[in-house]
Amino acid sequence: MKTALLSAVVFCLLLSGSIKAQTSQPANDAVLPDAIEDFKPATSNQDGKPYPKVNSERRARFRIIAPQAQTVRVNIGKGIRLEKQTNGSWIGTSAPLDEGFHYYTITIDGAEVPDPNSKFFYGASRWGSAIEIPAHDQDFYALTDVPHGQLREDLYFSKVTRAWRRCFVYTPPGYESDTTQRYPVLYLQHGFGEDETGWGAQGHANLILDNLIAAGKAKPMIVVMDNGMVGISPMGPRSAPATQPAGATTAPSADRRPSGGGRGMGDVGKVFGSILLQEIIPMIDGKYRTIADQPHRAMAGLSMGGMQTTQITLARLDLFSHIGLFSGGSIAVDNPALADPAAFKSKVKVLFVSYGSRENTKVAKANHDALENAGIHNTYYESADTAHEWQTWRRSFHEFAQLLFQN
Amino acid sequence: MKTALLSAVVFCLLLSGSIKAQTSQPANDAVLPDAIEDFKPATSNQDGKPYPKVNSERRARFRIIAPQAQTVRVNIGKGIRLEKQTNGSWIGTSAPLDEGFHYYTITIDGAEVPDPNSKFFYGASRWGSAIEIPAHDQDFYALTDVPHGQLREDLYFSKVTRAWRRCFVYTPPGYESDTTQRYPVLYLQHGFGEDETGWGAQGHANLILDNLIAAGKAKPMIVVMDNGMVGISPMGPRSAPATQPAGATTAPSADRRPSGGGRGMGDVGKVFGSILLQEIIPMIDGKYRTIADQPHRAMAGLSMGGMQTTQITLARLDLFSHIGLFSGGSIAVDNPALADPAAFKSKVKVLFVSYGSRENTKVAKANHDALENAGIHNTYYESADTAHEWQTWRRSFHEFAQLLFQN
Repeated sequence: MKTALLSAVVFCLLLSGSIKAQTSQPANDAVLPDAIEDFKPATSNQDGKPYPKVNSERRARFRIIAPQAQTVRVNIGKGIRLEKQTNGSWIGTSAPLDEGFHYYTITIDGAEVPDPNSKFFYGASRWGSAIEIPAHDQDFYALTDVPHGQLREDLYFSKVTRAWRRCFVYTPPGYESDTTQRYPVLYLQHGFGEDETGWGAQGHANLILDNLIAAGKAKPMIVVMDNGMVGISPMGPRSAPATQPAGATTAPSADRRPSGGGRGMGDVGKVFGSILLQEIIPMIDGKYRTIADQPHRAMAGLSMGGMQTTQITLARLDLFSHIGLFSGGSIAVDNPALADPAAFKSKVKVLFVSYGSRENTKVAKANHDALENAGIHNTYYESADTAHEWQTWRRSFHEFAQLLFQN
Repeated sequence: MKTALLSAVVFCLLLSGSIKAQTSQPANDAVLPDAIEDFKPATSNQDGKPYPKVNSERRARFRIIAPQAQTVRVNIGKGIRLEKQTNGSWIGTSAPLDEGFHYYTITIDGAEVPDPNSKFFYGASRWGSAIEIPAHDQDFYALTDVPHGQLREDLYFSKVTRAWRRCFVYTPPGYESDTTQRYPVLYLQHGFGEDETGWGAQGHANLILDNLIAAGKAKPMIVVMDNGMVGISPMGPRSAPATQPAGATTAPSADRRPSGGGRGMGDVGKVFGSILLQEIIPMIDGKYRTIADQPHRAMAGLSMGGMQTTQITLARLDLFSHIGLFSGGSIAVDNPALADPAAFKSKVKVLFVSYGSRENTKVAKANHDALENAGIHNTYYESADTAHEWQTWRRSFHEFAQLLFQN
């Protein structure tokens, strides 16, 4: 458990640093050389909105119409102070950003609000703006001309939290046409301050799998994405009792209630583990054509979801055979779950740990090597030139999914 | 076609009036007596957000944190000018609002932006804020302890628009457990400036059906909700070529393109009709366990979606047997589709027209009476004390659904 607690602290630090950098650091423009003028509207814009735009240097240009404002800032990267134009609009350009997906807000005369030009996503504990920076490898999550699975919304009442909950379930192409086939299941969790919408909307997990399955690189599987923000304070480990964020986009606002006190990150998997084991897995195995045994059940998560995955799977290796931790800690060779290495190896078919290259990867790499030296095969993956952000997790999922259920 | 064009003009006027009232009328506070101080957070708020609040008079109180702002307004009803408080927040209270769901925006020193306290919905041609005012009859769309169907997202490529599209499909409770049963299908359309997310997120069509089916008041059915904003300028009948709004919440941003010139409202059903007949219906009948014949196929829509329903169904009564028009025009007794009343009666099992009592209902009532006098049974429903807004359409759907597929 020492390892678990240490990892929890590590990812909390990473996470808080990441959220701060993305949403609320004070504006502190570097002096930038002129940008290359090949800006195009971001794909994350609301349709028809010309701004924000992104250029080939991965710089983002924002425009806000605010004729009577005194100051307008965009809180992304190191922050951008926009310049007032003669027509009442404000414009500013960022330094180059990492490839992928970044949350941001705008501040108009002290009011921090969403950018009305952006589509909205749930992250950093709120629905708000984000911008997509084109990536050199974006084809793996593109919507392409291949057979597509479905994303489904299931509503269920949890006896654990005494509240209605929602999960998204991906069913692979062909699920409807061949009703005799049964499928393995991956339980896939988001990070702190996110919800069950994250892996679809930000992560494109469905498209990544559609593309991999079409290419014969991943087995058709069911993926279950639920809300792991239970028994955790939305303000962080030490603050007031938790309320559970709702993710109501296409589903109704559920009657959600506070679900337990503000537990520390060390307990991050406790309440969600109860819901998963007692309620979600039985519901999914009852409702979908799953292969309902340990060899065909995986769990993975990003950041806090990785910690939940560690806590839940290592305690129940009778239920899970494939484990994925994306920027969410790693497993030390002295973990009690590995006390009998042969038993561990017989149960765990895949152990996958990943980070962005801009994260602190020392512990994870050392743990990977130590496990290998102890004869426990495991996979370490690093996403090039990305930090604690969705591009790291899209790539991690893309790698991990290819390892699943292959034996 | 004269009737169709007249109806188009009528609903355009209604619609433009409605959107203006909800989002962009200048602030013009009435002097209001003190509000009853029993305000509670709106159910449409992001979780944990105390504002906006609603009281028992159906008045909404908004709070925006904007320490350096000079003016803050909320664009709802007649508009509210917020008052600055000593702590940097701005507060204001509306006059009583209609029961139900209302889009709004805030304006901070001239910048019109979403309220960061609200969840976001697609309407008025943008993702933005809305507030739910509790209704005396809200139980019919509440999330209750009954068996729940699923909302599914299907992605498909349209040859008509040469673009990826998304539809939501409701499957009723039991669809998964009894895989021999087949179901009738309702094609259900949103209004101008809305998209395929509207009937789930704003309309709660899934919950309304779950509740009706559980009570034995509606037949289990499949409901298909697609995007009807095709071949229509998002700025209105007379403006520039159309782009098609994406509704990307849990699905990826599709590669959507302009889809034809800015047609007048008289052609509002043309492009969508092609997609529906050539692509959507065959896809749904191929993928889902439908009863794929005329007696088991219905279409309904609100506002512009009602006009599309009229155009599409009256031209193809060989395909549709149940017709619902919610604040979306009505059918005159001299419509060419009724030239042979006996033939019309033999094909059309339900013709349902509804409006909010605060809309102009004269033509619809007169048409209802004229049809009845001509021996064409039809249903006219009026939602009490509501206008051209979602509470009217929730109630309309609740009434209409009970009439579907009963013979």
